[in-house]
Amino acid sequence: MTTDISSLDPRIIARGREFFSSISGESPSVFNKGWWTGKVMDWAMKNEDFKVQMFRFVDVLPYLNTSESLSRHIEEYFAGDDSNIPDVLKWGATKTKIGGGLVAKVLNKTIRSNIESMARQFIIGQVSKEAVKGIKKLRKDGFAFVLDLLGEATVSEVESDAYREGYMEVLEAIQKELAKWKPLDGGGDDLDWGHAPKVNVAVKPSAFYSQSKPVDMDGTVEGMMSRIEPIYRKVMEMGGFMCIDMEQLKYKGATVELYKRLRTKYPDYPHLGIVFQAYLRSTDEDVRGLLAWARETGLPISIRLVKGAYWDYETVLAKQNGWPVPVWTHKPESDMAFERAARMILENADICHFACASHNIRTISAVMEMAADMNVAEDRYEFQVLYGMAEPVRKGLKNVARRVRLYCPYGDLLPGMAYLVRRLLENTANESFLKQTFADEADMDRLLENPEATLRRQLEGKCVAPEPEAQGGLPRFANFPPSDFTIEAERAAYPEAIARVRGVMGKEVPLFINGQEVRTGDHLDSYNPADPSEIIGSVCQAGVAEADDAIAAASEAYLSWRDVPAEERAEVLLKAARYLKDNIHDLSAMQILEVGKQWDQAQADVAEAIDFLEYYAREMIRLGNPRRMGRAPGEMSQLFYQGKGVAAVIAPWNFPLAISVGMVSAAIVSGCPVVYKPAGISSCVGYGLVEMWKAAGLPDGVFNYIPGRGSVIGDHIVEHPDVSVIAFTGSMEVGLRIQEKAARVQPGQQQCKRVIAEMGGKNATIIDDDADLDEAVLGVLYAAFGFQGQKCSACSRVIVLDAVYDRFVERLTEAARSVKLGPSENPANYMGPVVDKAARENVLRYVKIAEEEGNVLVKREVSDDLKATGGCYVPLTIVDGITREHRIAREEVFGPVLAVMRAKDMNDAIDIANSTRFALTGAIYSRSPANLELAYKQFRVGNLYLNKPSVGALVERHAFGGFKMSGVGSKSGGPDYLLQFLDPRLVCENTMRRGFAPIEEEDDWLG
Amino acid sequence: MTTDISSLDPRIIARGREFFSSISGESPSVFNKGWWTGKVMDWAMKNEDFKVQMFRFVDVLPYLNTSESLSRHIEEYFAGDDSNIPDVLKWGATKTKIGGGLVAKVLNKTIRSNIESMARQFIIGQVSKEAVKGIKKLRKDGFAFVLDLLGEATVSEVESDAYREGYMEVLEAIQKELAKWKPLDGGGDDLDWGHAPKVNVAVKPSAFYSQSKPVDMDGTVEGMMSRIEPIYRKVMEMGGFMCIDMEQLKYKGATVELYKRLRTKYPDYPHLGIVFQAYLRSTDEDVRGLLAWARETGLPISIRLVKGAYWDYETVLAKQNGWPVPVWTHKPESDMAFERAARMILENADICHFACASHNIRTISAVMEMAADMNVAEDRYEFQVLYGMAEPVRKGLKNVARRVRLYCPYGDLLPGMAYLVRRLLENTANESFLKQTFADEADMDRLLENPEATLRRQLEGKCVAPEPEAQGGLPRFANFPPSDFTIEAERAAYPEAIARVRGVMGKEVPLFINGQEVRTGDHLDSYNPADPSEIIGSVCQAGVAEADDAIAAASEAYLSWRDVPAEERAEVLLKAARYLKDNIHDLSAMQILEVGKQWDQAQADVAEAIDFLEYYAREMIRLGNPRRMGRAPGEMSQLFYQGKGVAAVIAPWNFPLAISVGMVSAAIVSGCPVVYKPAGISSCVGYGLVEMWKAAGLPDGVFNYIPGRGSVIGDHIVEHPDVSVIAFTGSMEVGLRIQEKAARVQPGQQQCKRVIAEMGGKNATIIDDDADLDEAVLGVLYAAFGFQGQKCSACSRVIVLDAVYDRFVERLTEAARSVKLGPSENPANYMGPVVDKAARENVLRYVKIAEEEGNVLVKREVSDDLKATGGCYVPLTIVDGITREHRIAREEVFGPVLAVMRAKDMNDAIDIANSTRFALTGAIYSRSPANLELAYKQFRVGNLYLNKPSVGALVERHAFGGFKMSGVGSKSGGPDYLLQFLDPRLVCENTMRRGFAPIEEEDDWLG
Repeated sequence: MTTDISSLDPRIIARGREFFSSISGESPSVFNKGWWTGKVMDWAMKNEDFKVQMFRFVDVLPYLNTSESLSRHIEEYFAGDDSNIPDVLKWGATKTKIGGGLVAKVLNKTIRSNIESMARQFIIGQVSKEAVKGIKKLRKDGFAFVLDLLGEATVSEVESDAYREGYMEVLEAIQKELAKWKPLDGGGDDLDWGHAPKVNVAVKPSAFYSQSKPVDMDGTVEGMMSRIEPIYRKVMEMGGFMCIDMEQLKYKGATVELYKRLRTKYPDYPHLGIVFQAYLRSTDEDVRGLLAWARETGLPISIRLVKGAYWDYETVLAKQNGWPVPVWTHKPESDMAFERAARMILENADICHFACASHNIRTISAVMEMAADMNVAEDRYEFQVLYGMAEPVRKGLKNVARRVRLYCPYGDLLPGMAYLVRRLLENTANESFLKQTFADEADMDRLLENPEATLRRQLEGKCVAPEPEAQGGLPRFANFPPSDFTIEAERAAYPEAIARVRGVMGKEVPLFINGQEVRTGDHLDSYNPADPSEIIGSVCQAGVAEADDAIAAASEAYLSWRDVPAEERAEVLLKAARYLKDNIHDLSAMQILEVGKQWDQAQADVAEAIDFLEYYAREMIRLGNPRRMGRAPGEMSQLFYQGKGVAAVIAPWNFPLAISVGMVSAAIVSGCPVVYKPAGISSCVGYGLVEMWKAAGLPDGVFNYIPGRGSVIGDHIVEHPDVSVIAFTGSMEVGLRIQEKAARVQPGQQQCKRVIAEMGGKNATIIDDDADLDEAVLGVLYAAFGFQGQKCSACSRVIVLDAVYDRFVERLTEAARSVKLGPSENPANYMGPVVDKAARENVLRYVKIAEEEGNVLVKREVSDDLKATGGCYVPLTIVDGITREHRIAREEVFGPVLAVMRAKDMNDAIDIANSTRFALTGAIYSRSPANLELAYKQFRVGNLYLNKPSVGALVERHAFGGFKMSGVGSKSGGPDYLLQFLDPRLVCENTMRRGFAPIEEEDDWLG
Repeated sequence: MTTDISSLDPRIIARGREFFSSISGESPSVFNKGWWTGKVMDWAMKNEDFKVQMFRFVDVLPYLNTSESLSRHIEEYFAGDDSNIPDVLKWGATKTKIGGGLVAKVLNKTIRSNIESMARQFIIGQVSKEAVKGIKKLRKDGFAFVLDLLGEATVSEVESDAYREGYMEVLEAIQKELAKWKPLDGGGDDLDWGHAPKVNVAVKPSAFYSQSKPVDMDGTVEGMMSRIEPIYRKVMEMGGFMCIDMEQLKYKGATVELYKRLRTKYPDYPHLGIVFQAYLRSTDEDVRGLLAWARETGLPISIRLVKGAYWDYETVLAKQNGWPVPVWTHKPESDMAFERAARMILENADICHFACASHNIRTISAVMEMAADMNVAEDRYEFQVLYGMAEPVRKGLKNVARRVRLYCPYGDLLPGMAYLVRRLLENTANESFLKQTFADEADMDRLLENPEATLRRQLEGKCVAPEPEAQGGLPRFANFPPSDFTIEAERAAYPEAIARVRGVMGKEVPLFINGQEVRTGDHLDSYNPADPSEIIGSVCQAGVAEADDAIAAASEAYLSWRDVPAEERAEVLLKAARYLKDNIHDLSAMQILEVGKQWDQAQADVAEAIDFLEYYAREMIRLGNPRRMGRAPGEMSQLFYQGKGVAAVIAPWNFPLAISVGMVSAAIVSGCPVVYKPAGISSCVGYGLVEMWKAAGLPDGVFNYIPGRGSVIGDHIVEHPDVSVIAFTGSMEVGLRIQEKAARVQPGQQQCKRVIAEMGGKNATIIDDDADLDEAVLGVLYAAFGFQGQKCSACSRVIVLDAVYDRFVERLTEAARSVKLGPSENPANYMGPVVDKAARENVLRYVKIAEEEGNVLVKREVSDDLKATGGCYVPLTIVDGITREHRIAREEVFGPVLAVMRAKDMNDAIDIANSTRFALTGAIYSRSPANLELAYKQFRVGNLYLNKPSVGALVERHAFGGFKMSGVGSKSGGPDYLLQFLDPRLVCENTMRRGFAPIEEEDDWLG
């Protein structure tokens, strides 16, 4: 039907040349070195470190409300040793240090105003009045507009409401002016260019629903719809156009669905657009899909095609999560994809209006030539560029295509700075067309060549990536990926698995000793905390006799298992990991039902179990390799390790699979057979280990499963003379008791017992006065209330600097009021029931203490309907007015109770943070390099997170564990962990016989 | 006076060519591939692994008395997967496995007889009769002889006596024949060649005195003299010649001295020779010195010049000890040295007779031409070669020089095999002239060129040695060298230092708290165990108040010290090491006086202290470097360590400086200030730490010295809430008590206490039936009685396989009867007093138990004179008839009491070895690869030594520590040690802001 793009190339190139010559000698203002902005851009392009510092400084700038704060940040960001800092900045920064006083203040003010005017270059106005004025001017210059309100980072429903109101307000303001605006190049209608509505707005859907999340597709679409629909109605009333912008990939599904619903709901109004991003690998399919949908439904649509603005974010996110990278990884691939999608849209011009949003002259030329080739009518496509960017391009476009629309953000400088950073990045990226064209002044032929040719050249010049490093022939360790709920199948898998598990649960769960199932007369039922009438399993309880049998079996197994080569022991772990991977949905479902984890939390737990297996397997292979000590010739000295003996593993219920598998597999791979006592509350999840080790082919006796009452077998196991290692995770009280009992050597005992105890925490998050609150609020919320706060890493104290206290607390409490409460089985719910009735009682006691000690800000209960189910719900509680002496600031609650504390400055905050008996996790949100550095050094906890929540530690990357009363032992999932199960042995051979020694390669022999 | 050698080169080369052509086509029998030996040699030269196995097998062969043992060893040494094994061996080996029975027996017998006949090639006879017969034959062929009795490895005075008797016997036998022997090429006299005695014997002096050791130069010379003089008298009586052979470097001083004394004592008898080794760098000087001595005294001398036979041994020993390598490291250097020394001797031909002992045709030619050039008379020099070696050379020599003497070893095949191995090595070494000439058939010009040219060529072609690896800019860790007592200054330093220390000791020793000296009213005197009336110091004893002060000071210091950068903390340790190095003799002297260490033992203790400082400094630099965890982009996760808090160090007296410094410095470098309680018995040595840290500039409060009574402050320190780490070395009883007390958390306690306890041992040494008893006897003796057995690593059980039991026990008991007992101050003494009166009482109790439980083989007391001094002497005790149930086999004695136990086979032996509560050190002497492998796996102790004594662990190389009831914690001086003082911390930064993250080099970014 259409010509191949490459056959159009000569014409595209000719068109491009023409374009270039029409704008010859012009340059975008951002590259103008006669101006402050141009100078800064120039430095940023030349110096990567400066670029990072500069853009970060721009990002934090609007938070710097005082002169002191501004000076300090300039000093911290720029007054390093680096002499590469441009004088325009350095001078000011240096002066603040030396001079102080008035001069510095003036200079700092200059810096601030320079940056703010830089922002204004890209933002059409800070308030609606300004925006309307700006638009008017643009229209006078012959440009259409699409208006976009900044501030899409909404953390609560109140903020989403306000965002909606922002749109309504600007629309009202426009409405008042609208009649006065003459259409551009108008015909008879009151339409621009004879066919386009004069009013055009873009909306970012996620901003309209603070609880948007991929796992809850329906809820997200409904939430977005409820606030966007009124805007759309207003737009329709004004005869305008609305475009639904495309944001991060995670919202793509909901956005497309939202578009379809809205388009279907108002079938007769055609001026509704959607955006697709050429950088996404899925875009070909997505565009094809929507076009098919339009044909199917007979509803005309409109698509804006862009390159995409979240390339770094999507790539980093995918890399961090171990997901396939969803974007094209070579810039020309995105350009090719843009041309492909454009062609597809133009081919369907009859039902799809096209907005080509690109600054790339090759792309623009290609679109023009394709449209011409296909004889697409002018009213079926237009061009868009960003306000304040690429002025020569917009000028050229106007010359050749007439129909140019500028994308105009408006709004506060606070969110505006974030937008500015994005623009600066775009202008300084090496692969940016604008940079190449106007800053690098690249060869025109190169700029206009078919991106396919560019790609070929890039790939040809590229080195082959080195093979990933291996350990014992294994690929390098990588964390198991979290669920990607943007994938429909993944969303469907959970309800299916829950139903499957529900179908088979509720039975008797036996012990497992020496490879045999053992049943006892004593049972304990495990129930669903969301519905205690639902029994997960009736778990046989071990008594002293069964504990002794299990220890005897383990002791016997030790004699052979310790000598099984490390690689073979590791191999069993890898098989176990394979079993977990194959059954991850069912295992997650079991946790959702037995302990009330949300889907993602449950999946993360199984994933962590997989990680422990994969990591410890590699660690043991590493440690299993005897290490030569010294290099003396005539002597071969080797250090290696031997499992200490039988390990008793006493596990908690909150990470019922992960922590159990972690401790158990560490012991087993180290050569220590295990007697495993799961927590009573999660014994059914614990039974998963029996099935896992069976599947992995572990020899009998190496793993023994003995759920049992602590009061009956707890001390007995700990004191047993044949137990050499006790790995425990749980409360401080129990941990210290174990430590004390284990230290007394019993008659017949061979080894001094090694106790590994991970205990409690009272974890603080510090909010600096320059913190990015968009992130801090959500981070604290998640760290405090994820899985109902039942994590040893949970944030239970948030320490807020005075200067930002009110703003933060207000946003936090509103955010807390916005989340949904209810059964974890429903992915819409943010928080579910605590794990059992005893936990509920305990939390309620602490809520009472919180009420007595402080001032309750939030105390959200579930609905009465849910209460009536008898589920173990407790209120989501936030209390302020708390100081370090309060019990709620000192004792671990293990539930959704957050204490807010006020600090006068950073030192005070760190002091408060360090003031408990615990030292497990902590977090700080700050954009002050000095304060981050201070926290790095002085905020003394096992795991500290900078600008991240304090929860969600990943194996290896965030090797986990604390000190003080938080733990005895070295970090789980870290490089020293296995050593705790091992005794080092050294064998030194004198290799000299009769004065003659074979010389080994590594010997310190004669040069 | 003489011509430069290089100007003689044309003549030397011409002479050499003539030599070669006179022997053209002939080859030494060892290289004849038509014979078994030749085949084996050929394989050995082609395959290094086979060579090692083959020569080791030859070494062990004479110990394989049964057919079963022989079969098993052939299997173990050769029946590996290696297809490179020559058929001649493999065939037999394989058959033993498959066929068994008669065929295998015959084949194995063949292998044995082949090897034995290989030995006979180099050994003129096994008994004196055979030797005399062999000599007769040689003389008939026109060769003179020099006779050497094999079996120089004497471990006791009985054996030295027997060795002397062996010489007397063969001299008697020769005497009977002597008259019948016609002189070679005789003139009128009854002398060979008209001038040389017909009888010529060589003696290895160290064999004549089993207690030879460099530190006791006088005693060694006297001991050697006492047995060599009778032989010399017999030789003189027969009108013969005696040459004193040169052995390992360590005997060189005594050997030269012996020569001088003997030569001076019989000034009128000129036929006494001595040997110098061209490979020693010191030989130029030694030869010059002896020639000067001859001129000075007017006594004519005789020198045999050889290349030297212990090159590997001397090099390995030097490398192992960190001494300068005493031999030339390039073969041509030795050849150059030979020619230089030869010239020097020939220049002094008037007073020095010269025996040129070389198989190197270049060397021989050079000597001939130099002699010719200098007109040296023929009766002033002769040539020597080894019996059975290099037949073409001896033939050629006879052709051109007439005066050829063969060096003829004779004696048992048992020592004979060791001699055989040396010869095989010599023939297969790549640089061997014989190999190059006759096996490699190297170019004649190369073989005859001036070694200076050869050297130049070798050095030119050589790569520059890579720089030694560094850690934090430091050179790689190396152990501090032990004293080299062959150096006279080193021998003199000890008495001087002892006198110096004696001059200042006996004073009050204060406490040291927070940088201040503190004196208390309570004192405890420390005395010299060899003479309790001698007071070393009057040591102030800390009470509870002082302990509290010290802990308070340490706690305060912790707040700053923990944050001092690791490199700076390490730097303090390196300064401390420098102080110890500068004061090593005085510090050693203090130990000799306070705890009764022998010189070398005391020096080793100080050296170990230095090692700990140097090693832990590097270790902390290594650990102090934050480690990036994971490679996720957008995230910077770092693992690093923080000192746990105040460390209490409770030290033992037996390694009073080393273990104290080890524990203390590990804590300090980790950031943990220390409260140090030395053992009461060694508090004066312990005070050395105060001076050391002062010299190193350690801040106040980081180190506090509080000697005190355990009953007063022991528990108090352990239970103190502000103590976070307890590092203890001492008895099991105390260690377990500490562990128990420390496990209970006290009110106000911040950290769970970490206990590092190195406790007792009941260490076994296993003697396999194929063990090299020459080494095993001395090894066990040293491990059991060195420093009076007061080491936790001391051997207290020797487990001997039935087959070798009688032979081993007899040699061991005789060796034990041969050592000297008395004050450690006198370096002649092997064993001194135990550390104090209480220790004496304790050991005597165990001696009584030993007497009750077993059969006392040795119970040696010091002389009555010494007893009368009141010194804390106990008898050196060896008891057999001990089984694993006996107390003497189970309880740690900590004194010179050795239990001998019988095992029926290796499994039984390992089972006995593992049967105690302890698992500290162990040793095995075996030449069975399978049994060494079995011990490696199954002899489960912290430090196992194969063919080495179980004592003398060096930092890093032998990282030290055990498990079971021997220890809690990881090996001191090993890579995991510092971790025990450290809490791991992890800081993870989210580096993504506004969707933008700087990409780090190691990030897992897009390829």
